[in-house]
Parts: sequence; structure tokens; C-alpha cells
Amino acid sequence: MSEYAITPRASDFSQWYLDVVQKAELADYSPVRGCMVIRPNGYAIWERMQAGLDGMIKATGHRNAYFPLFIPESFLKKEAQHVEGFAPECAVVTHGGGSKLEEPLMVRPTSETIMYYMYAKWIKSYRDLPLLLNQWANVVRWEMRTRLFLRTTEFLWQEGHTAHATAEEAEAETLRMLQVYRDFAEDWMAVPVYPGKKTDAEKFAGAVRTYSIEAMMQDGKALQAGTSHNLGQNFAKAFEVKYQDEKQAWQYCWQTSWGVSTRLIGALIMAHSDDQGLVVPPRLAPIEVVVIPIYSKEDQRAAVFAYLEEVKAQLADAVAFHVDDRDQFKPGWKYAEWELRGVPLRLEIGPRDVEKRGAVLVRRDNRQKQPLAFDALLPAIRETLQTMQRDLFQKALDFRAANTRLLETYDQFKEAMQAEGGFVWAHWCGAADCERAVSEETKATIRTVPFDVTDGMETPGAPPPEKGRCVHCGQDSPRRVLWAKAY
Amino acid sequence: MSEYAITPRASDFSQWYLDVVQKAELADYSPVRGCMVIRPNGYAIWERMQAGLDGMIKATGHRNAYFPLFIPESFLKKEAQHVEGFAPECAVVTHGGGSKLEEPLMVRPTSETIMYYMYAKWIKSYRDLPLLLNQWANVVRWEMRTRLFLRTTEFLWQEGHTAHATAEEAEAETLRMLQVYRDFAEDWMAVPVYPGKKTDAEKFAGAVRTYSIEAMMQDGKALQAGTSHNLGQNFAKAFEVKYQDEKQAWQYCWQTSWGVSTRLIGALIMAHSDDQGLVVPPRLAPIEVVVIPIYSKEDQRAAVFAYLEEVKAQLADAVAFHVDDRDQFKPGWKYAEWELRGVPLRLEIGPRDVEKRGAVLVRRDNRQKQPLAFDALLPAIRETLQTMQRDLFQKALDFRAANTRLLETYDQFKEAMQAEGGFVWAHWCGAADCERAVSEETKATIRTVPFDVTDGMETPGAPPPEKGRCVHCGQDSPRRVLWAKAY
Repeated sequence: MSEYAITPRASDFSQWYLDVVQKAELADYSPVRGCMVIRPNGYAIWERMQAGLDGMIKATGHRNAYFPLFIPESFLKKEAQHVEGFAPECAVVTHGGGSKLEEPLMVRPTSETIMYYMYAKWIKSYRDLPLLLNQWANVVRWEMRTRLFLRTTEFLWQEGHTAHATAEEAEAETLRMLQVYRDFAEDWMAVPVYPGKKTDAEKFAGAVRTYSIEAMMQDGKALQAGTSHNLGQNFAKAFEVKYQDEKQAWQYCWQTSWGVSTRLIGALIMAHSDDQGLVVPPRLAPIEVVVIPIYSKEDQRAAVFAYLEEVKAQLADAVAFHVDDRDQFKPGWKYAEWELRGVPLRLEIGPRDVEKRGAVLVRRDNRQKQPLAFDALLPAIRETLQTMQRDLFQKALDFRAANTRLLETYDQFKEAMQAEGGFVWAHWCGAADCERAVSEETKATIRTVPFDVTDGMETPGAPPPEKGRCVHCGQDSPRRVLWAKAY
Repeated sequence: MSEYAITPRASDFSQWYLDVVQKAELADYSPVRGCMVIRPNGYAIWERMQAGLDGMIKATGHRNAYFPLFIPESFLKKEAQHVEGFAPECAVVTHGGGSKLEEPLMVRPTSETIMYYMYAKWIKSYRDLPLLLNQWANVVRWEMRTRLFLRTTEFLWQEGHTAHATAEEAEAETLRMLQVYRDFAEDWMAVPVYPGKKTDAEKFAGAVRTYSIEAMMQDGKALQAGTSHNLGQNFAKAFEVKYQDEKQAWQYCWQTSWGVSTRLIGALIMAHSDDQGLVVPPRLAPIEVVVIPIYSKEDQRAAVFAYLEEVKAQLADAVAFHVDDRDQFKPGWKYAEWELRGVPLRLEIGPRDVEKRGAVLVRRDNRQKQPLAFDALLPAIRETLQTMQRDLFQKALDFRAANTRLLETYDQFKEAMQAEGGFVWAHWCGAADCERAVSEETKATIRTVPFDVTDGMETPGAPPPEKGRCVHCGQDSPRRVLWAKAY
């Protein structure tokens, strides 16, 4: 078992995370600086995330498309903030087909510019709006410090890009997709998130407003799990994305973009997993149940495997199960291996279960055991999967509540960030100077400015709106904002 | 309607193809040299192809993973033939994060080298074999002459990469995946193909043997629709992909790789479409049925739309349908638009159909009309979709038969290639010189060397094995091979 030993969370959270990722064979380092290999166990989770989210993106009227990997350098420069934000992170292709290129090509760090060049070509009339596209793709951002899934030079993501006739429609779309991300994080990943607005310092390069969902990891740090940007007319003006309105007058479009990435796999791991390894919420588990036959003598083996056929027939096409029938490993070894890999449920079937025509179901998260009769197997598995999904969410919600505080003074704030960390709701005057000073001194940043009644959306769990005094400068503050150290 | 006018196939096949691609909004040129934009109508077909093929790849025991986009230049150089074949086509990243890189990175033209570096790390024992992975990804090959879908600098594909303990297992895998490609082409795309072996001149750079499936387009030219390579131990030796056998002795692995790409969308178009536009086989159609309400007066509209609700209720969740309820367009205009877009079936519903409680079903491919009673709608639609799928395949098979000949003399051969083209089964002595001479003079290449009884696989439709004389040099020939001009 020693090859599976995982550093406990309490002794070194960061090493624990890397141990889980590598020992559960979710991802591996590649020989290319900062780039990871997503191994089959990790990719299978990504495929389930993609399937779930893709359905939600299509259900809200979007269609998938694919745009070029390369972006001419001149395109990136057309939007001033955008180039400033992304050019320093770009990988640059200077040669192709054996010759030096006339104009360098950037490997896309995000696709606003290349997509909106095409939008300008396609959109002619108000009848062409809204244009609602999404792309699943790889992107590259040159990162100095990388960590598997969380921050890698190349990563996989989806990026939605829309164009609208009015500012109101664009804002509604921006919030709609933020809500889709929140639903996905909470309903599929079982990770509670705070939706809210980013400060100007944290917003996307080229956006008018950036919204995000923020999750708490088990070390109390925040992870930005998805962003949705209202781009206003910034890119429309840079790329001449225009339409003729009903009166034949030309108008600039209003645009949005929004994305989530393979970073979500890192969030999933750090939200639910434990010192035995990965814990995957049932809705995203490639294998929902692992079946372990138990026997010590050869005649037991035959009886157990005969009964197993009946069990398999009952589960077939109804749950995603795997029978671990390897003879060379003992049951206890198998339990540990499948716990490491995060399969939500284990079904143990030994000689006594054959006799009684039953089986024992064990949950991965809390190790609760349920003895079951044969006829109850499938319904009990289904129900337990649902219960476990709910319980994981509730546990994460309780953990977040236990690690979130309302603080008033800067001394309290500094002490908290030095000691236990976690989330802090504290007042902020709105000045970028205060934001910068606090973050330089404490490493905590403003994760989100919660919605208020005028925003048409809520930040559930945020403290009720109240005026106060900035935790840093003591000036008037319109509301508390969420502070935390972040990934 | 003029904006939809498509150049007839008979007057300019190449322009017809581009007209279909662009007017059906399947793809568009991008501002990046040689790169295309896959528009939603085209991408939806790709998604259906992916879903179908991915299921078949998983059913044969493979798992998906993801490897880096970038390949260090030194990796490509480790296999001599491989670097010779691919280095001239590479896009090269020389700068990243604002600095010049110590070693240039190639944007992957194919992933053997980066994947097998990892395989060498992961594979230790015969117990780790076979390793059966697949990757869905974008790849880049610098192309001088590009054509939407058929040949583009960046394209999307899947690439399977496996490692085995024995030569026999690797050969069986190579042929198994060729068969999967054949099944996919014929059963899903309704495109008949010849499976067979490539000559040395046409094989993959680094392979021991390359197999392919070859399809006939409506202009009589061949299109290579998928390839499967037996890599022998070439890459295993270059990357030290080794395992310990049961006696603890180290052995090099035997490997395979195989792939199909977005090129298949081009094949689909050129195999089935017509002068009215795209024809999509029902199994790959994102929309199976378009429903067109017909009315001229306002009171008719109300009655038709009320009846439509009943029709929608019958079809819901059973077929992928779309109701074209746009008031601003006449039915005839809509017919033409949906024919252009290749939706397999059209359901017309007018005032008389409401009265009789029926509808008229029209096939895209042959325009056959079926008047249907309300209760028969769903069963008739299902059956017609299946019939149309079979008919498209049969039509393509008949077309191929009508455009394939057995020829004996070089004069006949040259005349055929100058005049009508098509497929020619002619004898070949096996010498690379003859192959080169014929192809230089006639532009026809050897598309495939058919399987014979010793290969463990057949090439259905190939002429029975017989000895003869090479069409070019007159020397002894063991068998006829398939010649054609190709995309």
C-alpha cells in the first residue's frame, strides 16, 4: 500500500493535493514546461463535466463552433486593455512550414479577437442578433508558477461569446451564464459558490464588468471557478461588430464572454477529497459503483462469481458499475485503491452475502455501511447516490459557514489572514488604493462584491446589505465584500 | 433566392463544393492563413460524428486522455522518418511569456512523440499492457494549398495510440481500428469505403505499415477517410517504451496509432450532396425533420399552428425536429433553405392537412412525397429516416460501381485518367519506380493494396485475387491495386 500513501491534508495541504492528483492518476507533469497530461481517470471526469455543462449551454440557446488556434498579433492589439493583459502571457509562433512568418501568430490565450473579427463579417442586421456561440478548446497562457489543473500553461475550457442589440440584453446574458455556472458548480460538482461582481482590479482585460463564482477549498482559500464578462461595446468598436437596426441605422453590438476550464477539476478535488484520496460527487463519477467480490477459498470464488452474475444483471444499463475481479489482490487492497480513485460507492459481496442473497453497500465519503437484500440493490444504490450528492454539498456548505467570518477591524482582519485564513466579509470603501494595500499586506484579495437588490440577482449566503466603515481606511463603505487568499 | 444559388456540380465540382460549405454555413475562411472557422451548422455534424465514433472507440476498450499541444523540437527528431515527414509542416513557437525559448516548441502535427515519452514513464510491466488511449484534439500542419475541411492548416481529429506486448497484438489492433473506421464510414456516414494497405510511398512517416479506408467522391476522385498505422517498435526504440515480461526481461513495446479528422465532413458533403445543397445522412443529422407550416390567410395560420401543437407533442423527445415558424418567409423559400442545409426530412402542414388530420413528408435526397395520417407521423418518420440512410449508402455504392473499372493496358489507363477518372483496378508489379512514374504522368496514385486471404481481413468489392502484368512495366504482378486521383 505504501505506493498509495498520501500526505495528510493537515500536514501539507499543497502536497496532499498533488498526491491525490498523481496517485489517483488524474494528471501528470509533461516534459513541456507548465503543460500537463490529463490522464484517463482525470479526463473521464472532464468528459462528464463537459456533457453536463454543454447541455446547460445549449438549453440556454447557444450553439457550438470552432475558431482558429492562432491569432494574428495585430488583432490582439486592437483592444488596448486586452493586449496589455494578455500579450505578456502569449506563446508566439514565428515560423511555419519552414519559413519565418510575415506577422507572428499568438497561440490563443482567449478568443475574443479572432471570433469578433468573424462576427463583424457575419452580423449585418438586427435579425442576426443575438448571436450566441460557445467553443470548447485548448488555450495557452504562459505561466511562471504552475500547478496541475489549477494553473497550467495549456488548459482546456469552454468560452462563450455573444453579441446583442442592446446593453440590457448583454447584461442579462452575462448574469444568465453566471447563474448557469452557479447551478453547475452546486448541482453537479456539489460545490457551493458565491456569485458576485469583481472589482476593477480583478476584472477581465477588456471587460466593462466581470462576474465570478467563488468557491472555498478545504484549506480555507478561495478558488475562482468561473467568470462571466460584460464586454460592453469595447470589442465591438475595436472590431467593427455592427448591425443595422429596424430603421436601417448602424449600431455597435453589445457583447459578453464567459468561461470555465479544467481548473474545475482542481476545485472538485480540493473541495471534497480526503486523506484516503479522491472523492467525486456521484453526478460526475465515471464509475458510480465498484463491486468487490470477497472469497478466500476456490469453492467460495465460484459461488460468489455465480451470484455476481445476478447482481450484474440487476445493475446493467441502470448504473455505471465496475467489477474488480482481479485475483491477485486482496479485498482490503482493492478497497483502498478504489477509495483513492474516488468511486462513490462500493458493493461488497462475500460468501455470507451469497447465502443471505444480499450485499453490503459502503459510501466513499463517510464510509457508512448498508446491508442490502438482493431485491433492494438497485433502488438503494440509486437513492444512496442521490443522498451522497446532497450530503457532499451540505458538508461543503457547512465547512464554508464554519470558515467564514464578519470582521470589523484591520487588526482582526490581519490576524485572521495570518492564522486560519478562510473567508472574511469586511467593509471596503471602494478605493483601489485600499484594495491594493490590504492585499499587499495580507495576501487576501477581494473575491467578490456581492449583488444587491438592484442587480437582478442575489448572492445567497452573503451578509445582509448594511453600511459601515472600510476595514482599511475607516471611510464610509456601502457594503461588505468577500476577502480571502486565493488560488 | 439568388444568394443561395449554388454552382452546379457538372459545371465546376470544386466551386460547387465550396458553395455548399459556405452557403450552408458549415465553415468559413478565417483571417489566419489556411485556418478555417467551423460554423455551428458544420460543428453540429462534427459533434454527432464525435459522439458516434467515440462510442465505438470506447466499446473497443480505449480511454480518452489529453496530451500537450506543444512538442519539444528534439522529440520530433528522435524517429528519423517521422521528423523528415513532419518537421517541414510544423508551426514553431519560439517565444513564450515575453522571452525567447531555449528550445523551440512545435505545435503538434500528430502526437506520437509527446505521448510515447509519457508511455515510457508509465509502462513498467506486462501487466500495464495493452495501453489503449485516444485523444480528441486540434493539430497543425502547415499547408500550402488549403480547402475548407479537406486540407487546412489546423484541423480537429482523434488520434488513438496504443502499446502492446507482441507484434501480433499490435497488428490485430491496427486492423481492428481500421474496421471501426470502415463501420463508421459505412454505417454512420453512408459512405462505402475500400479498406486496404498503403504502399511504402504512401505510408505514415515512422510506420511499418499503414492501412486506410478510401472513399469515392462524386467527381470520381478518391478521399482517404481514415488511417491506421502499425508502428512496429520504431517509436518504442526511439522513446524507450519498454516493459518487463513475465520472466522479468525487458522488451520493447509494439505500437499502433490511428486517426480520422474533420476532413470527414468534406467527405460527407462530396459523397451525398447535390445541386440544391447539403445532404446529410439521418444518423448524423443534427435536425432530422424540419416542420413547415403553410398558410396564406391569418385564420389559416391560427388553425395550422393549433394543429402543429399536436404534431409537436407526438414528435417530442422521439425525433430531432425544428419548426420553422418565421412569418416573413414563404414556404417555398423555406423549402429551399432547409434543402440547402441538408435536413433529411421536411414535414409540410397546411390548411388541407389540418382538415384531413394529416401531413406531407418529403425526403431531402430524392424529394419523394408521402402523405401521412396524423397517427402515422412518428412511425413513418422513423422508418423513412432509416430507409433514407440505407438508400444513401446504396446510391453511393452504385455510383462507385459505375465509376470503377478493371483496366489492363497503360493506354487504357492513361485515357481513363484523362477522361472520366474514377477508380481503376490495375495490376502493379510492386516497384516504387512504376508507382512514381504512373503517378507523375497521370496524377493517379495507388490508393490501396487490397487485403488477401492471408491478411485476416477482406477488401469487399475488390476484384478476386489473380496474377497479371503490371499496367506500367508489364512485369509480373501479384494482384490488382486501386488507382485514382485523390484529394
